[in-house]
Amino acid sequence: MGQVPRILSWRNMLVLSLAVNFSLILRILKGGGGNSLDIMAYVSIWPVVSTSLDRTAYNSMWPVVSRTASGTSSLSSSSCNYNEIEEDDDRIINLKLGDPTVYERYWQEMGEMTTMVIPGWQSLSYFSDNNNNLCWFLEPELGKEIVRVHKVVGNAVTQDRFIVVGTGSTQLYQAALYALSPHDDSGPIDVVSAAPFYSSYPLITDCLKSGLYRWGGDAKTYKGEGPYIELVTSPNNPDGFLRHSVVNRSKGILIHDLAYYWPQYTPITSIADHDVMLFTASKSTGHAGMRIGWGLVKDRETARKMTEYIELNTIGVSKDSQLRAAKVLKVVSDSCGRSGNETKTKSFFEHSYDAMSERWKLLRQAAKNSKRFTVPDFTSQRCNFLGKVFESQPAFAWLKCEEGIIDCEKFLREKKKILTKSGKYFGDDQSYVRISMLDRDSNFNIFLSRISSSFNSTL
Amino acid sequence: MGQVPRILSWRNMLVLSLAVNFSLILRILKGGGGNSLDIMAYVSIWPVVSTSLDRTAYNSMWPVVSRTASGTSSLSSSSCNYNEIEEDDDRIINLKLGDPTVYERYWQEMGEMTTMVIPGWQSLSYFSDNNNNLCWFLEPELGKEIVRVHKVVGNAVTQDRFIVVGTGSTQLYQAALYALSPHDDSGPIDVVSAAPFYSSYPLITDCLKSGLYRWGGDAKTYKGEGPYIELVTSPNNPDGFLRHSVVNRSKGILIHDLAYYWPQYTPITSIADHDVMLFTASKSTGHAGMRIGWGLVKDRETARKMTEYIELNTIGVSKDSQLRAAKVLKVVSDSCGRSGNETKTKSFFEHSYDAMSERWKLLRQAAKNSKRFTVPDFTSQRCNFLGKVFESQPAFAWLKCEEGIIDCEKFLREKKKILTKSGKYFGDDQSYVRISMLDRDSNFNIFLSRISSSFNSTL
Repeated sequence: MGQVPRILSWRNMLVLSLAVNFSLILRILKGGGGNSLDIMAYVSIWPVVSTSLDRTAYNSMWPVVSRTASGTSSLSSSSCNYNEIEEDDDRIINLKLGDPTVYERYWQEMGEMTTMVIPGWQSLSYFSDNNNNLCWFLEPELGKEIVRVHKVVGNAVTQDRFIVVGTGSTQLYQAALYALSPHDDSGPIDVVSAAPFYSSYPLITDCLKSGLYRWGGDAKTYKGEGPYIELVTSPNNPDGFLRHSVVNRSKGILIHDLAYYWPQYTPITSIADHDVMLFTASKSTGHAGMRIGWGLVKDRETARKMTEYIELNTIGVSKDSQLRAAKVLKVVSDSCGRSGNETKTKSFFEHSYDAMSERWKLLRQAAKNSKRFTVPDFTSQRCNFLGKVFESQPAFAWLKCEEGIIDCEKFLREKKKILTKSGKYFGDDQSYVRISMLDRDSNFNIFLSRISSSFNSTL
Repeated sequence: MGQVPRILSWRNMLVLSLAVNFSLILRILKGGGGNSLDIMAYVSIWPVVSTSLDRTAYNSMWPVVSRTASGTSSLSSSSCNYNEIEEDDDRIINLKLGDPTVYERYWQEMGEMTTMVIPGWQSLSYFSDNNNNLCWFLEPELGKEIVRVHKVVGNAVTQDRFIVVGTGSTQLYQAALYALSPHDDSGPIDVVSAAPFYSSYPLITDCLKSGLYRWGGDAKTYKGEGPYIELVTSPNNPDGFLRHSVVNRSKGILIHDLAYYWPQYTPITSIADHDVMLFTASKSTGHAGMRIGWGLVKDRETARKMTEYIELNTIGVSKDSQLRAAKVLKVVSDSCGRSGNETKTKSFFEHSYDAMSERWKLLRQAAKNSKRFTVPDFTSQRCNFLGKVFESQPAFAWLKCEEGIIDCEKFLREKKKILTKSGKYFGDDQSYVRISMLDRDSNFNIFLSRISSSFNSTL
């Protein structure tokens, strides 16, 4: 849009605007209520010309989204057709990482509702106007929407908690280690987590050979004396099970990673209430590219030191992404209030619950048919938010190869061109692999098609 | 805008749109070419309703920008009036940090040229579509604009360099330490810089008690044997002088922090060509809130390890801010091509050069009048970019109190309610303070007014 003042004369703009009227008059004559996509196509007349980046994005990323008669998402029907898809045998399917592109469809269907507009003169300062908030770089609007979404979902206590925003929950994990480790000369504190644990924890913890903390391994076999930090990831990455601390000693300090404690992945059975709870937009709304996470922290001094770490590490967190995250969370909370029969639209969590539910149904069917691999079974529980009983349907499948397949990762990579992460990186053995359940329909469908045949044909 | 489909009927939108036509017709009848602010006010009809955040931003931040007849910035004329301003004796002026809000005025005058529009479904992925770039999370558009702006300004070599994007140059500094430190058992490598050095370097280097590196103090007095890392900040923070490495030993590894090597601060006398060069949007364009920095790195393995650190530390860098930074840098480079008599508009660097030049002229005059404090003198050099000879006009003033003022920071804080950073934090003595020259006109003018009287009246 930098060029608009020079490219577009006022007469050009009048012609554009009259064209807009004409389309509106036609629409009214047709009595069209339209859906959000139509409105996007209309309203985006201005944003689209505003930047070549945006235009590229529209051209390259805007899909033709088919809709059912009810106007609900077509994701379900489309992802059912995994056995009818055009298979491309040479294509490598990478399900190593939890890239949450499964959510693109929902945000595409929401159209302009979450379009972010940031003027060039906004957010130049390092500081946020947040009334002397302890976390001086937290955008107040984001703080407000974080509290609201947790109240709507009922998955975490926010009252009397300090909010610390981070560049993803990965930075917040390091901020928590900095805040909770003793800074005297007592040497590094051990950091432990029950295997299978998130494969990045050991790498992040030890990458700088810190004198404050060090990786202590599997919490289940931890024998160390004195203070320690235990990481509790619930639901767990990689296996999806709900967890509690396993080292029950008086000197334990707990960090709860609740990145996956959302109703699309697991029943919300209680309001989490722990000293340090970490969440991230990457896995809650799917906006991994924003790099926004937040910590809910009970103790003021812990929150102050976490803020201090983020100040030293990156002098705060992107204002642009904080403002965008606030807008996305607002739309998520609004959608929960609006969903139901009267609107015929699903809330974000209903939509994403359905997507995960269907993928797990298909994966379990494939496992049952092949008998050569298994996935975990979860007990059904009632979700206070969705008001129904269901089993966990995690963001990752912790898949175990059976009957003579010793190295499951190697088997899937060499025989079926599917990239996964071996169990050995999670403190477990290589008969296991972690598989992302959050990829786009096209990749997930090819994955299903290949494993449905692979275990029957290849061995 | 989340509510638009429900709040605005198609008839409402037609009425809105017809009103827009009417204003356009009136403007055309008046023959108004308008300026970018008028266009902003017009085009922003859609963006403004799109979110309460945007509306708040418009109301609270959109200033009445007076313009000279030529249509150039009014910053000069406005900031001349420091002795006519309404002084508020109780107001504390905080010039401790280099918050670059002086640039707000320019970006306000650019209006919608740098307005960023990001659809809610964009950039969900952790990854950037960057053709297997070594830095896998670098947005290609940002990479392109980084190369372009350095070519336009001529301040750094980009050919055969790897670009590593970071969450500000602070993260890139740590990435460089991670990449350049030995990872064997040889123990932490010393990191040194000539005093006065940036006060955050020691804190960042030692905050995690890393076994890879440790702060080694003033490079001028460094006596250590074996390998070391020397930080060369040029122009230097806090004193603004151009620098070269001072420890001339064979085992030295250099990191060049070139955050201030831009023509508004110092003459661009040569194209910087070093192994590791760090830059940041905060000080080049003033967008500190974006938290975007970049490294130009000669060695592939160093760039790979810097990328590895950022992956471990924050799993990449905000896509939103990268896309916004690309747009801002594009406008900066475009403005350099467009500036001159034929357009009557200043380029970004001409505008910001004028702003800094005037502030330094006023500060030197105040110093001369009072005789109670001094600021550094710089030798004049020819700037290859601006094509004229001038003295450095740094982002910070390294102010020295004279005649019996032992603690300069205490004096300014207690006597004149001006917060500055004491020389003792920069490895120097407390007769010095660092003062930001990048604050808004209103604060800078009050600062000038107070110090012009303070040194004459208070002692």
